[in-house]
Amino acid sequence: MIKIGLLGLGTVGSGVYEIINNPKNNLKRLLNKNVEISKILVRDKNKKRNISVPENILTENPDDLLNDPDIDIIVEVMGGIDTAYKYISTAFKNNKHVVTANKAVVSKYLNDFLSLANRHHKGFLFEASVAGGIPIIKPLKQNIRINQISEIKGILNGTTNFILTKMAEENLSFNEALALATELGYAEADPTDDIEGYDVQRKLAILSSIAFHNQVAVDSIQCRGIRTLSTKDIEIFERLHLTVKLAGKAIACDDEISASVEPILIDKNSTMATVKDAFNIVSITGDTIGNLQFYGQGAGKNPTANAVVCDIYDIISGQFKSDHFIQNDEIKCAGIDLFKGKYYIRINTENKQKVLHLLDKNHIHYDIISIHQELILITDLITAKSIDHLINQLQIFENNYFYARIEVNDFNVSNYIAI
Amino acid sequence: MIKIGLLGLGTVGSGVYEIINNPKNNLKRLLNKNVEISKILVRDKNKKRNISVPENILTENPDDLLNDPDIDIIVEVMGGIDTAYKYISTAFKNNKHVVTANKAVVSKYLNDFLSLANRHHKGFLFEASVAGGIPIIKPLKQNIRINQISEIKGILNGTTNFILTKMAEENLSFNEALALATELGYAEADPTDDIEGYDVQRKLAILSSIAFHNQVAVDSIQCRGIRTLSTKDIEIFERLHLTVKLAGKAIACDDEISASVEPILIDKNSTMATVKDAFNIVSITGDTIGNLQFYGQGAGKNPTANAVVCDIYDIISGQFKSDHFIQNDEIKCAGIDLFKGKYYIRINTENKQKVLHLLDKNHIHYDIISIHQELILITDLITAKSIDHLINQLQIFENNYFYARIEVNDFNVSNYIAI
Repeated sequence: MIKIGLLGLGTVGSGVYEIINNPKNNLKRLLNKNVEISKILVRDKNKKRNISVPENILTENPDDLLNDPDIDIIVEVMGGIDTAYKYISTAFKNNKHVVTANKAVVSKYLNDFLSLANRHHKGFLFEASVAGGIPIIKPLKQNIRINQISEIKGILNGTTNFILTKMAEENLSFNEALALATELGYAEADPTDDIEGYDVQRKLAILSSIAFHNQVAVDSIQCRGIRTLSTKDIEIFERLHLTVKLAGKAIACDDEISASVEPILIDKNSTMATVKDAFNIVSITGDTIGNLQFYGQGAGKNPTANAVVCDIYDIISGQFKSDHFIQNDEIKCAGIDLFKGKYYIRINTENKQKVLHLLDKNHIHYDIISIHQELILITDLITAKSIDHLINQLQIFENNYFYARIEVNDFNVSNYIAI
Repeated sequence: MIKIGLLGLGTVGSGVYEIINNPKNNLKRLLNKNVEISKILVRDKNKKRNISVPENILTENPDDLLNDPDIDIIVEVMGGIDTAYKYISTAFKNNKHVVTANKAVVSKYLNDFLSLANRHHKGFLFEASVAGGIPIIKPLKQNIRINQISEIKGILNGTTNFILTKMAEENLSFNEALALATELGYAEADPTDDIEGYDVQRKLAILSSIAFHNQVAVDSIQCRGIRTLSTKDIEIFERLHLTVKLAGKAIACDDEISASVEPILIDKNSTMATVKDAFNIVSITGDTIGNLQFYGQGAGKNPTANAVVCDIYDIISGQFKSDHFIQNDEIKCAGIDLFKGKYYIRINTENKQKVLHLLDKNHIHYDIISIHQELILITDLITAKSIDHLINQLQIFENNYFYARIEVNDFNVSNYIAI
C-alpha cells in the first residue's frame, strides 16, 4: 500500500483525488500495489466542496501529513511560494517523495529541491507545473541526454491565447476579449500574471533550466505582455499573413542563452498559428532530434491532474531514479542579446517625424505600412536590444505603442502589396 | 560497462553508433556507466561504408552477438521479419534486453516479444518503430495507465506526406511528385509500401495494440493508399478549404475498435493540415487528458537513432521495468464499422446516371460538385461500410475513382458557393 498526502484540494487536487479513486484506471493493476490518498491538507475542513471526500482524511494541520511516517509521497497542489517551499522542503527532510504542479515554487527553487531530493534519495517530479496535460518535462529530460538543445519555444498560457484567438477571429478588442475570458472562467479576477506574461516567464524558467542544464532565474527572462495590442494591429497582421502569439522562447548559442516572453508574429499557416483558444504548444529543437512539438491542453482540472498522477506512477514504479540534472556552470544568461529579427512597430504619436528621425539616427531601416493615424512600420533585420533601446529613447507611454518580432524566414513586406 | 550488440549498420544503425560514440552526449555522465557497442552484425564486412568503425567489431555471424554472454542489450535495426524475429527471440532466450526500430517485426510479433521479455525479466523497447524521432510509444504507455483512449490518428508516413504536399503546393501530378520523392531519396525504388499505406498500417497496428490493450493484427486494419489522387481532386479540396492527408486512424467505442489507413480530408486551418513534407504527427485522445498531438521528424537517420538511444538509456537505467502490457481480451476489432462521415467521391465514368441511380438505390444523399468530365460529389453522413459497398457495386477500375471521408465537424458544402 502506497500512501499519498495531498496538500490542497482545489481544482487540480480534486482531479487527482478523483483519478486515484477511479476504479476504471489501470494504476493498481499495473503497479501491483494499492495507492491511497490517506490525508488531505485544506484551509477549512468545513468548506462546502463539489467533491465527496471522507471527512476523516481532511486536516487543517500540515504536520498530520508531513510528519506521518506512513505517507510515502507528498503531492503539492496548493500554489503559492513560501508556504509551499516550507512544506516541500520538510517533506524531503522527512524522507518523502514530492510531486508538485506549482510553477511558482518550482521556477524559484528548482535547484534546491533537486539537491534535497538527491540527498534523501527521493523523487521530485513536476510535470504538471508546465503546460498542464502536455508531457514536456519528461521528453525534455529524455532528449537532453543526447541532444544539445538550441531552442525552446511555446504558447504556454491559455488565457492570453484565448484572448488572441478571439481578437483575431471575432474582431474583439483586447478589453472585450479579456472580459469574455473572465466571464468563461479562463482569466482570473486579477489577470496580470497572464496578460503581462509572468505566468509564461515561470514556465519558461523551468523548461530552460532543464534544457540548458542550469537554473535560469525567473527574473533573467525579459517579459512583455499583450495589453497594448490593438484591433488595428490584428488587421495589419491578417494582411501580412501573420498571426500574433504570446510566446516564451529561449535560445542557446555556445555558452550563452537568451530567454524572453513577448508577443511574436508567426506565419499564419505554421503549426503554432493553428493553436487556438486555451490550447498550448511547446516546441523544442535539438541537434540530433531536430524539431519536436507537443500540443494539448495546457491547463484544466483533468489534464493537469493527469500529469500529476503520471508523476505519482513514476515515483512508485521507481522511474524517478533516472532523472538527473547536470549542472553546467558555463551557461550564462545573456539577456536578450541573441534575439534578432524584423520587427513590426506601431506607434501612436503626434510627432511621427521625430520617430522616423530617431530610427534613422539609430541606423534602423524600415518600410512604412501606414502613417495616417498611427505610424506603423516593419524594420529590417535588427537586434532585440536595438529595438529596446529605440523604444526607451522614444519616451512615450506604453499604451501608445506595440511591437513584435516577425519570426518568419525571409519575411518580405513587399510581397504584400495589398496594404 | 554496458555492452551493446548492434544488428545492422544501415542508416539507423550508423546513427546509433555515432550517437553512442559522440563524446558530447551526456549518456555516460547521467548513467554513471560506460556504454559501448562491442559488436555489429553486417551482411558484408568488406563493404565500403560512410562511417568509420573498427574492423574487429564487425561480424557476419549473428552468434557472435547473440551468444556473447558479455553483451547486455541487442539493438535490432536491420529490418525484415523472419530473420529479425529469430534473432530477437534468441536474444531474449539468452537473457538479453532488446531494442528495435523494426515496425514490420514488432507489428507482427508484439505479444510474443512482450511475453518473452517478461518471462526473462528483460526489457523490450521499440520507440523508433513508429514515427521515428517523435516520442509516442512512451507517452501512450504512460497515458493508458489512467486514460481510456478513444482515438489515435496520425500522419505516419513521410514519403506520402511529401507527395501530398508537393501536389497541393506546387500543382504536381501524383506521378511527378512521386518521381521527385524518389529523386530526393524520400521514396524507395519500390514505393508500394508507402503509397498503398502498408507502412502506416504496421505503425497503426503497434499504436493501437498499446492504446487498446490487445494485439491488433496488421491485416485487420483496412488499407487504402493515395495512388489515384488527381490534380483535379486537389483543386476541388482547395476550394472546399480542405487538405488531403494519408492518415492512420483507430477509434474505440465500448469493447469495439475500428482502424483504417486511408486518405482523409481535414480543415485547411487545422493543426494536422500544417504538417508538411516528410514530417509526421500523432494525435491521441483520452478521457482524462483530452487531445494530445506530437509533431516531429518521422524518419531519418538522426531522429530515428535518437529514439533508439533513448530506449537504450531506459533499459540501462531500469525504466523499462514499469512497462507493462495489460491484455484486454474483450476488445474486438470491428473492421471499419465505427467510421462514418460525409464523403468526397470522384468517379470517371461515361455512365454518370448509372452511378447516381446506384446512390439513390443505396439511399445515399449527395450534392453534386461537378458532372462535366468527372462526376464529383459530396455525400451526406454515411458509414464507411456503405461507401465501400457502393464502390464495390460500381465495378469500375481503381484508377477511375477517388474517395475520402471529410473529417470536419459540421462540414457544409453549400458554404462554398464559389464552386
